[in-house]
Amino acid sequence: MSFEIKASDSNSSARTGIISTPHGRIETPAFGPVASQGSVKGLLHSQLENLGTQFLLVNSYHLFLRPGVEVVKKLGGVHSFISWKKPILSDSGGFQIYSLSPLVKVKTKGVEFSSHLDGSRISLSPEDVVDIQINLGSDIIMALDYFVPFPSPEEKLKEAVKITSLWAKRSKTRFAQQSTSQLLWGITQGGTSWDLREKSIEDLLEIDFDGYAIGGFGIGEPRSQLMEILEKSDSLLPQEKPRYLMGMGYVSDILDSVEKGIDIFDCVLPTRNARTGTLFTSKGKISIKNQKYAQDKKPLDETCTCYTCQNFSRAYLRHLYERQEISSAILNTIHNLHFYLDIFQKIRQAIQSKTFLQLKKNIMNKKEEKES
Amino acid sequence: MSFEIKASDSNSSARTGIISTPHGRIETPAFGPVASQGSVKGLLHSQLENLGTQFLLVNSYHLFLRPGVEVVKKLGGVHSFISWKKPILSDSGGFQIYSLSPLVKVKTKGVEFSSHLDGSRISLSPEDVVDIQINLGSDIIMALDYFVPFPSPEEKLKEAVKITSLWAKRSKTRFAQQSTSQLLWGITQGGTSWDLREKSIEDLLEIDFDGYAIGGFGIGEPRSQLMEILEKSDSLLPQEKPRYLMGMGYVSDILDSVEKGIDIFDCVLPTRNARTGTLFTSKGKISIKNQKYAQDKKPLDETCTCYTCQNFSRAYLRHLYERQEISSAILNTIHNLHFYLDIFQKIRQAIQSKTFLQLKKNIMNKKEEKES
Repeated sequence: MSFEIKASDSNSSARTGIISTPHGRIETPAFGPVASQGSVKGLLHSQLENLGTQFLLVNSYHLFLRPGVEVVKKLGGVHSFISWKKPILSDSGGFQIYSLSPLVKVKTKGVEFSSHLDGSRISLSPEDVVDIQINLGSDIIMALDYFVPFPSPEEKLKEAVKITSLWAKRSKTRFAQQSTSQLLWGITQGGTSWDLREKSIEDLLEIDFDGYAIGGFGIGEPRSQLMEILEKSDSLLPQEKPRYLMGMGYVSDILDSVEKGIDIFDCVLPTRNARTGTLFTSKGKISIKNQKYAQDKKPLDETCTCYTCQNFSRAYLRHLYERQEISSAILNTIHNLHFYLDIFQKIRQAIQSKTFLQLKKNIMNKKEEKES
Repeated sequence: MSFEIKASDSNSSARTGIISTPHGRIETPAFGPVASQGSVKGLLHSQLENLGTQFLLVNSYHLFLRPGVEVVKKLGGVHSFISWKKPILSDSGGFQIYSLSPLVKVKTKGVEFSSHLDGSRISLSPEDVVDIQINLGSDIIMALDYFVPFPSPEEKLKEAVKITSLWAKRSKTRFAQQSTSQLLWGITQGGTSWDLREKSIEDLLEIDFDGYAIGGFGIGEPRSQLMEILEKSDSLLPQEKPRYLMGMGYVSDILDSVEKGIDIFDCVLPTRNARTGTLFTSKGKISIKNQKYAQDKKPLDETCTCYTCQNFSRAYLRHLYERQEISSAILNTIHNLHFYLDIFQKIRQAIQSKTFLQLKKNIMNKKEEKES
């Protein structure tokens, strides 16, 4: 078993556990910073480790195109190539194919698309996508899914679930033929329709994966519908397998999702917002470009223990942002990731000590205070 | 006395010493990374300190325009504003005025120019430039000089020396009226004409500064003429005052200049080249974008102890460069600055142990080996 539950909240579905991977353990609930090209934008691996990063997410699609899977394999796999010793989760590339590539054609056989780089025509079957990730050597491999926009007509959602289940089955078959200690996780689709989501989950449970992702969200669907799906999925998904809510990252969404039994998160939100000058603090968001910070000697967050807050004023951070200094991206990213990873540490502690709902209340109350 | 010589080479004019400033000591020969806007591009202060950075150079011109001297002063001075505790040298802004600003007019009174940002007309007297740097609170203040291009007609060079001396005198007078432990250094001009350079040095010696800069170089003059001027200046400049060769940064130039008694250097070369993918190694330069590094598992320099070389392959560094990842700039800058600061440490040790010329020979021989 690759997942072990350590503690469960008695008043919600929140739980803390340990996922065991070939490159070590991930204590859940956990957040994986996004390293699309094998590097978290703005941070060095040593800084990520200091911040308590447990695993990284890399994009199969990007690494498949450049430098290419064969090159990564020759260089000893993705861990060796990027010199990251802890667990790595690779996405299937599905999201990138459907969002970045022109002329996508989904067939039963697989997906056909044009490279967003040079337009060259590429075909990938679910088997290819498993092979790519096995060759990359990532610890957690995601099966190829069929991701459709929100809103999509019922018929299209149905088709997406059908193809996703078919591909999931073939992914599992391919994966089972390999001798590897990597983990294979399946992705459920079905949008905000519970009937379809239920079907998707049931199909995947029958195939049996090491973990289950809730896919197809974070693309404009109403929050209440997302939460309803998460709550219903919680009853259907087996307790003993980890659950992954893909690509969602607002703190309020994370807290609600942990409450509904989600274990794994990834999102570009803290890193991307850092680079565009939006900083998360215990009292709400700060847009550092605001003129009112030009002579503000205070740190971003007076309660924060990160390198940025321990050393630099809002005035200096605003100056660096306005001058487009590289250190602006670095210092802001350190702060935002510290903020996220610190919340996850608090979440795990609170679940252990049976105070999760109290922690959630405290975090949400503080965020609603007036911005300082 | 703000400068104390610790050891002198018996076979050259190389010496090692200590400059005492309000924010601590600088062991010379020393290299100051350039933090134009108060941040070394690509690096955090903690990384600079780990690399052994002894002082930073900030640009008065840039800080004068944004965020403005009054803002920096209100925030506690430049050390407090940028949170850097070690010595800071501020340039006079002269070089930026002559190189960045349109419509520059040099008059006896001072310099008039248009801001390169909004075209607004700005007048600065040498007294203003002293006041700006006193308010910034930098440890080493540079007098405003008149910097002319290479080549310039004899008449223009003569005028530059005359005005530079006049301004130097007025800078000293203004500085002497203040009660401050900051240091004021003068800048000599005269291009590659020894007669004019001699005149400039003599004028400045009469005024008496805490240190002397050799200005007006690194703008296309023949290397042999620069070295001739440095050699002759060495005999004329007092031993007991530090000498600063402004803006020059090739390792071969640095070694030759140290041999001719230069103590202080600054240059954007290691940091700027890092960002454009040119890395310095003990065996010569590497252009990391070169296809031949795409599958190269070796570090940039197998003898290097920096974070980049201890952890990452040329293949990964090339990938990051090609993908324009921020970590490319960071990792390359760590390597290049480590390379420079390491050479300066070796230079100081070699002067102490009377082996400077041997060290110089070793470095130059290795650099001439075929690129690995």
